[in-house]
Amino acid sequence: MFIQKYYQEFEIGEERTTIGRTITETDIVMHAGQTGDFFPHHMDKEWCKTQTFKKRIAHGTLIFSVAIGMAANVINEVAMTYGYERLRFTHPVFIGDTIRVKISISNKKDHKKPQYGIVTEKVEVFNQYDELVMFCEHLLLTEKKEG
Amino acid sequence: MFIQKYYQEFEIGEERTTIGRTITETDIVMHAGQTGDFFPHHMDKEWCKTQTFKKRIAHGTLIFSVAIGMAANVINEVAMTYGYERLRFTHPVFIGDTIRVKISISNKKDHKKPQYGIVTEKVEVFNQYDELVMFCEHLLLTEKKEG
Amino acid sequence: MFIQKYYQEFEIGEERTTIGRTITETDIVMHAGQTGDFFPHHMDKEWCKTQTFKKRIAHGTLIFSVAIGMAANVINEVAMTYGYERLRFTHPVFIGDTIRVKISISNKKDHKKPQYGIVTEKVEVFNQYDELVMFCEHLLLTEKKEG
Amino acid sequence: MFIQKYYQEFEIGEERTTIGRTITETDIVMHAGQTGDFFPHHMDKEWCKTQTFKKRIAHGTLIFSVAIGMAANVINEVAMTYGYERLRFTHPVFIGDTIRVKISISNKKDHKKPQYGIVTEKVEVFNQYDELVMFCEHLLLTEKKEG
Amino acid sequence: MFIQKYYQEFEIGEERTTIGRTITETDIVMHAGQTGDFFPHHMDKEWCKTQTFKKRIAHGTLIFSVAIGMAANVINEVAMTYGYERLRFTHPVFIGDTIRVKISISNKKDHKKPQYGIVTEKVEVFNQYDELVMFCEHLLLTEKKEG
Amino acid sequence: MFIQKYYQEFEIGEERTTIGRTITETDIVMHAGQTGDFFPHHMDKEWCKTQTFKKRIAHGTLIFSVAIGMAANVINEVAMTYGYERLRFTHPVFIGDTIRVKISISNKKDHKKPQYGIVTEKVEVFNQYDELVMFCEHLLLTEKKEG
Repeated sequence: MFIQKYYQEFEIGEERTTIGRTITETDIVMHAGQTGDFFPHHMDKEWCKTQTFKKRIAHGTLIFSVAIGMAANVINEVAMTYGYERLRFTHPVFIGDTIRVKISISNKKDHKKPQYGIVTEKVEVFNQYDELVMFCEHLLLTEKKEG
Repeated sequence: MFIQKYYQEFEIGEERTTIGRTITETDIVMHAGQTGDFFPHHMDKEWCKTQTFKKRIAHGTLIFSVAIGMAANVINEVAMTYGYERLRFTHPVFIGDTIRVKISISNKKDHKKPQYGIVTEKVEVFNQYDELVMFCEHLLLTEKKEG
Repeated sequence: MFIQKYYQEFEIGEERTTIGRTITETDIVMHAGQTGDFFPHHMDKEWCKTQTFKKRIAHGTLIFSVAIGMAANVINEVAMTYGYERLRFTHPVFIGDTIRVKISISNKKDHKKPQYGIVTEKVEVFNQYDELVMFCEHLLLTEKKEG
Repeated sequence: MFIQKYYQEFEIGEERTTIGRTITETDIVMHAGQTGDFFPHHMDKEWCKTQTFKKRIAHGTLIFSVAIGMAANVINEVAMTYGYERLRFTHPVFIGDTIRVKISISNKKDHKKPQYGIVTEKVEVFNQYDELVMFCEHLLLTEKKEG
Repeated sequence: MFIQKYYQEFEIGEERTTIGRTITETDIVMHAGQTGDFFPHHMDKEWCKTQTFKKRIAHGTLIFSVAIGMAANVINEVAMTYGYERLRFTHPVFIGDTIRVKISISNKKDHKKPQYGIVTEKVEVFNQYDELVMFCEHLLLTEKKEG
Repeated sequence: MFIQKYYQEFEIGEERTTIGRTITETDIVMHAGQTGDFFPHHMDKEWCKTQTFKKRIAHGTLIFSVAIGMAANVINEVAMTYGYERLRFTHPVFIGDTIRVKISISNKKDHKKPQYGIVTEKVEVFNQYDELVMFCEHLLLTEKKEG
């Protein structure tokens, strides 16, 4: 589970897709409980019937957290999260929708510290209809291999 | 709890700070359970002793989710989340640390649809030592008041 | 979120109503897990079919806990819970029902300590059909403003 | 686990005491998550240091829910909860305290429907120092045995 | 709740059956969260549609854990779990199925320490159609009554 | 994550060890909540002080469930769990202990259906002191590769 993948070993265009996971009412109720966000968009079935989307929707932070968790398959000892850019929620995720995550290397650039580079993973989340529901860029501060 | 605050009513420099919340071992274990991320950084006390930070650290997605939840105090019917920019984790959060969130309006700009503007909330999370542990920019697509 | 509302500032007849919250199967399963009450009224769908109410019902303590939590919107630094009276469960709450809470000031009386009074909040919980499902009286030991 | 104990079979003075249960940080965090009550009294270790009680305290509704669950040992098919009276929280419960529940039959009275009576269980919750932390009266609408 | 039932007091053929419990989506999601097993058999509704069983199934370890918990009704101070044998999952448990557990004493044998014997409880789990979904043998190291 | 590893491809003696996971108070409280087993061995700190082991211990079913979850790293499409044998709990697991799981192929044998064989994985769980706390045999019904 521990690997060492250096800056030079990432190639733009590499990609992988995770298995799927169904987002359940349980996930939403537990995420409300974890974050304290009990807004009616997520928690009030009756109020949602009066809104455009008609149904309860998952919290954006739930989809982001689950997607990042799904994408985390190996521990790269020579990289760490630097941050995230351009996080967007492009389509609501409803109870019972099934998401999967596509991760692709979209950019590489030097870092001010010469022994590091920034690798950008594009993270895209799709539902069971292949609709893009979320995307972001995950920046990885990655060691360069010496030599 | 429902309010209507239009684009014109946001002023750059407005700010508010939430009450605090202690991040517990329970939060980390439940976040692992919600996301499937059981990496030893969060879940293996013994392994952590061998690392630079010595102790288990909270998932970045936990701090982000809790912070956004803490910041969500009113439902603005004329604004919705457009996305997040520049999410950074600047200091580890350990079990037992207490965080609070400072939200300030840092930018406003027009949107291509003329009836909307983008309001930027700067979200900063501090621990009990006033160290900045996370920040990001929360973009709100906000209706303009007519007339 | 912190306020100071003294005994003299409460007026009989003041009222407010919360937003709604749907009571889910998750809430019931988690409440069983928190309390250890796995009685078939809440946890056995087949047994419930043989009973008058036909369906699993929420624990009374769940509805009470959630209702009191929904009602807690501000921290009044000069009042604290003294206790509850006349807690009654007047209608079962089923999985998928949505409740909201109405809080009204129904009584005020002096306390033996002259610097305090008891403010009574009537707490009423309604489902999506406007049926009263629970009520109780919440007694608040409240400081009197001097002078 | 199912029994039939009629009104006539309850005797004033009957009592039983449950085994103990330690109230953990997990219980408090999960109860906050279930109820939405993230008040600093329960969730902010730093703020609590500035208060009289110095430490985070359990929600009253948590202690009530757990105590009622601990007391529920058999399903009496000829009785049902009518309500609760005089619920009082007499001492804070801190993380790590261990509670047990004493249940005693304190009153019996006729009900307006002649085939029922109201049995009152006094419910008292003690911590590991034998301090009373909560009490209430649990009213049971109980069938009378014919004849 | 504490009893003392010695080796000599167990009789082969004794049996009891628990009340029922419905296995919910919540149970499965929380068990995934506890164990880290997010395999699509349990968590991906869409993938399950492509498989023989068509629907998400409960983890074997969930059914085992719940069944053993349901069977644990009294604390026998003179017996302790020695282990389990022949654990088999004979039929999938789907979301919404209701299980009950039958426990019967199936064997007794001496232990090398003469003051103990091994009592075997056969544990059988049935769903609402009386289909056997799991069984195992629970071995109890039990004190012999002197004399 | 999906692989196809046939009966012939398993070799006796193959082994792997997982990363570690700390068993927390949260895990125990949640496992009690999932199973309904609130026995004082797991849930009553005060009572445990009077017992041989002095401290709360994890449920056997928790350690088994977590260990099996930790061991589940790939989905082998041509194998399925047939059952478990000889499950033993050899040492208590206390709050804060860190476990890891060693899986080794210990046996192979034909099955009555000629296209299948039974592969036995020995599952051993160790704590941070390298003490064996649990073991069992996991039987996998595995397809034979034709030819």
